[in-house]
Amino acid sequence: MKLGLLVVGSVAFDSVETPFDKIDNALGGSATYISLAASYFTAPVKLVAVVGDDFGKENIKLLETHNIDLEGLELIEGEKTFRWGGKYHYDLNTRDTLFTDLNVFENFDPVIPEKMRSSRFLILGNIMPSLQLKVLNQMTDTKFIVCDTMNLWIENNKDDLLEVLKRIDLLVINDSEARLLTDEPNLIKAARIINEMGPSYLIIKKGEHGALLFGDDKIFSAPAFPLEDIFDPTGAGDVFAGGLIGYIHKTSDMNFDNLKRAVIYGSTMASFCVEKFSTKGIEDLSNLEIKSRYLQFLELSKVDDNE
Amino acid sequence: MKLGLLVVGSVAFDSVETPFDKIDNALGGSATYISLAASYFTAPVKLVAVVGDDFGKENIKLLETHNIDLEGLELIEGEKTFRWGGKYHYDLNTRDTLFTDLNVFENFDPVIPEKMRSSRFLILGNIMPSLQLKVLNQMTDTKFIVCDTMNLWIENNKDDLLEVLKRIDLLVINDSEARLLTDEPNLIKAARIINEMGPSYLIIKKGEHGALLFGDDKIFSAPAFPLEDIFDPTGAGDVFAGGLIGYIHKTSDMNFDNLKRAVIYGSTMASFCVEKFSTKGIEDLSNLEIKSRYLQFLELSKVDDNE
Repeated sequence: MKLGLLVVGSVAFDSVETPFDKIDNALGGSATYISLAASYFTAPVKLVAVVGDDFGKENIKLLETHNIDLEGLELIEGEKTFRWGGKYHYDLNTRDTLFTDLNVFENFDPVIPEKMRSSRFLILGNIMPSLQLKVLNQMTDTKFIVCDTMNLWIENNKDDLLEVLKRIDLLVINDSEARLLTDEPNLIKAARIINEMGPSYLIIKKGEHGALLFGDDKIFSAPAFPLEDIFDPTGAGDVFAGGLIGYIHKTSDMNFDNLKRAVIYGSTMASFCVEKFSTKGIEDLSNLEIKSRYLQFLELSKVDDNE
Repeated sequence: MKLGLLVVGSVAFDSVETPFDKIDNALGGSATYISLAASYFTAPVKLVAVVGDDFGKENIKLLETHNIDLEGLELIEGEKTFRWGGKYHYDLNTRDTLFTDLNVFENFDPVIPEKMRSSRFLILGNIMPSLQLKVLNQMTDTKFIVCDTMNLWIENNKDDLLEVLKRIDLLVINDSEARLLTDEPNLIKAARIINEMGPSYLIIKKGEHGALLFGDDKIFSAPAFPLEDIFDPTGAGDVFAGGLIGYIHKTSDMNFDNLKRAVIYGSTMASFCVEKFSTKGIEDLSNLEIKSRYLQFLELSKVDDNE
């Protein structure tokens, strides 16, 4: 049975400056990163997003090479693709947004193609909560819904966001967003509050400190991969979510033990992503590379308790 | 064969203010916390430190109840015990030192009692590196030496500290100290630099994010215990080190796999410590409580990789 995985989010061109280098107009956007990462686990991933007529053929080609179904990728003639520019600080943990040109995204009204509305798995990339709600309203048969969000929406669109939270299964956010959403500094308490807002499962990403998975009255603490050289953190959170939902879709198993493995696969994909600029780190991986790093990940926190 | 565990450090009275409560002149000091924590794993722990004649009998009694050998605890008549006062910020991750009255500690010249000089296991609590060197110079037969330090000594006594590092086996510091010591923001690179300074093993404590163990070209990532209520973080680092060295001494096994378990036992003890003010959280634990939380710790990061 094909259950179907639908990804809705942004496709963008990013201009990124890190302490090491800079790049202009590189492929980016939450839906791009999520789809590429998920494509290593399941196919075809169905992508719904919008681009302008400046979205080059090489980018379409890249997505198609990953067996991503682009029927839901709307191309608007005479307009430009969403652009974002940011600059990372010395420690790569914080960044400033230099510019945001919404372009085609300004009037984005996500229309889910008829055949995709019955997808059982849905991941809502980080876009405005009102758009996430529009997507949710078109879906007929979802089984598991993952959602990402950000501080901007928590601060400015909280009512819509709270509506979204009531209708999803797993929220993926970072630690500062969890604190902002709940006004609670202790992450364990914050997780309980978010659980009461709706989602049965919650993942709090902590960057170089790994991630926490909450659900079924259990907690799983995943390590971060000990990378010596982080080149560009852009998209790491989306790639994490993409690897996660890709693995969940592949296995069709939402038990807590399997969600743990999904978190490690998500972290694995994110560790590849940050090693290169833009999507370069996840464009051409082999299943062997992914599996090998996944096993290294497991080794990192494994304790032989046969004392 | 009794190998012997010697603890050298400070014994103090702490005045601590947290967002929840405050306490004056509570028992504290690195050697106190380390000895109490280690005492749950091995006995007798031998303590070398100095106090004034204001060090009450109830404190002596407490240490004796834990089978701590106090022959090396020097009591100086007419002088006062070392006092420290600090205030924690809202998130409990940072604190300000309000006062430091060195008192008897000002002229502390650690003399290791003859019978303790052949101890095979030594832990140097966080005291001035020149004092740590004096201790090292008196030891005749050490097999495994653990050392703690702090930003103050890294900034002001670095030459002495580098001498100490050449002569120890395991350094235990926190993440900001590791970055300060190496001038390297990436902890994986910082760990390599510290390894070249001398110690074969390194533990970097990351507070609410757990700890990293480095050695034998391996890395172990330990989670933090998901506590909802942290009452007083004072002494948590010392208690971590005490549980760690206590377990290592008990097992006399310095293999990486066993050091992992020692890290989890150290973390276990620290999690009890922060639940109450001062030493209260580790004064009266049962072996069952410790083992039970240790097993919960293991569960936190356990992944069943039988996909």
